[in-house]
Amino acid sequence: MITDKRRQFTVKRTVLRRLARELTAAKGSLVLVHGGGSFGHPVASKYKIAEGYGNPRQLIGFALTHRAMEKLNAYVVDALQQAGVPAVAMQPSACAVVENGRIKSMELTPLRKLLKLGLVPVLYGDAVPDLGKGMSILSGDQLVAQLACELGAKRVILGVDVDGVYTVNPKTNKNAKLVQEISLSNWSSVKKRLSSGVGGRDVTGGMAKKVRELLALAERGVEAEIVNAAKPNILRRAILGEVGLGTRVVAR
Amino acid sequence: MITDKRRQFTVKRTVLRRLARELTAAKGSLVLVHGGGSFGHPVASKYKIAEGYGNPRQLIGFALTHRAMEKLNAYVVDALQQAGVPAVAMQPSACAVVENGRIKSMELTPLRKLLKLGLVPVLYGDAVPDLGKGMSILSGDQLVAQLACELGAKRVILGVDVDGVYTVNPKTNKNAKLVQEISLSNWSSVKKRLSSGVGGRDVTGGMAKKVRELLALAERGVEAEIVNAAKPNILRRAILGEVGLGTRVVAR
Repeated sequence: MITDKRRQFTVKRTVLRRLARELTAAKGSLVLVHGGGSFGHPVASKYKIAEGYGNPRQLIGFALTHRAMEKLNAYVVDALQQAGVPAVAMQPSACAVVENGRIKSMELTPLRKLLKLGLVPVLYGDAVPDLGKGMSILSGDQLVAQLACELGAKRVILGVDVDGVYTVNPKTNKNAKLVQEISLSNWSSVKKRLSSGVGGRDVTGGMAKKVRELLALAERGVEAEIVNAAKPNILRRAILGEVGLGTRVVAR
Repeated sequence: MITDKRRQFTVKRTVLRRLARELTAAKGSLVLVHGGGSFGHPVASKYKIAEGYGNPRQLIGFALTHRAMEKLNAYVVDALQQAGVPAVAMQPSACAVVENGRIKSMELTPLRKLLKLGLVPVLYGDAVPDLGKGMSILSGDQLVAQLACELGAKRVILGVDVDGVYTVNPKTNKNAKLVQEISLSNWSSVKKRLSSGVGGRDVTGGMAKKVRELLALAERGVEAEIVNAAKPNILRRAILGEVGLGTRVVAR
């Protein structure tokens, strides 16, 4: 949503500036995670990074994928700093130990200390070394769940460019209805009707993958909400504590 | 040496391109570390990051210092990638646990895996959260020693813009003589005569601090050599195994 998905390496500066301003509303500790958009995904796809290490040409592909993500991260961090937020990048591929696409452990001592000082760590989906398959893509969604769980987050907000999770793709179907709450009990029936295109295509999967990470998180006691950050002030209101703005992912 | 120390945020592109080409000579695993030059140092100085956390205005200073280092790192990584080296940034402030300016531990699992795949990690002096004094500067020199020790490096090469360690500052004194070998036994006498200006001023100290880190490393069994990377092909020759090109730092 902060990148133009039709044009590679293009950021939506106005959207980014607005979101940075909305994030200044946060009280207390804030950790940010963003995805790959039109930066990381096309490069990762081209070199098949998510499929694991198979041939040496993927090495420069891995290097270029990470570099693309750093570029997007720099836009995000710069926008935040300009809004007065003391944002600092946190490179996932430097501190996450990943095996077969899943985080095995993560060195969070530096991040915890940054938070305590009042800094705002900004992580991102990243190309990561993988103890199992050599290399893989660590999605922003998995990072969100991992961090929320380990840090004991009070609240998890996922900003997307639709109002939440719909029964069918709202961009192509007028009868789409917003699902206000997803839990383990209704997820299988919601999932069946989910169009695969919801939330845009990317190498780490769309809305269904987001929900799956958030459900696992809800089971561990942290509720999340998927909201429309493309609409002005929704993210700000969610950060200030308002619930029911989009789709809540809960345990019950 | 890769930055113009008189002009902030200015990189010496020609020098950087040449060094990237020279580094392609490396056989086997290679880990690179660079300092702050005219990127990190002025920002870190302005906000007194090395002195530890004292007031909230340092938060944006910390964020800006790290961002400045990322910018320099991006120039280095891009030059290496353009020379065909699969270079990947490794953010020290994301994986090093630092206490009162010294590394307490470091998550090196991702870095080790990158090396094993054939990628080239590129680290840098960085503003880091500090468990003791809140925040501090982790110098590239300390990183070099830490990494060489933990990874069991065969060879450590420090590229500077003079031929090595001199008896007095070679830039201002014609009688300066190159010290071919520094060990614990002659260091105290060499140090006494060292001009504080050798190697340029920076927030993490000049040549004396480099030597101190390398002596501690030599004691743990890893020899190092300080060579003139400003002269074409010296770095390449050192990487290919030639010794005696500058000042060796040894244990005996």
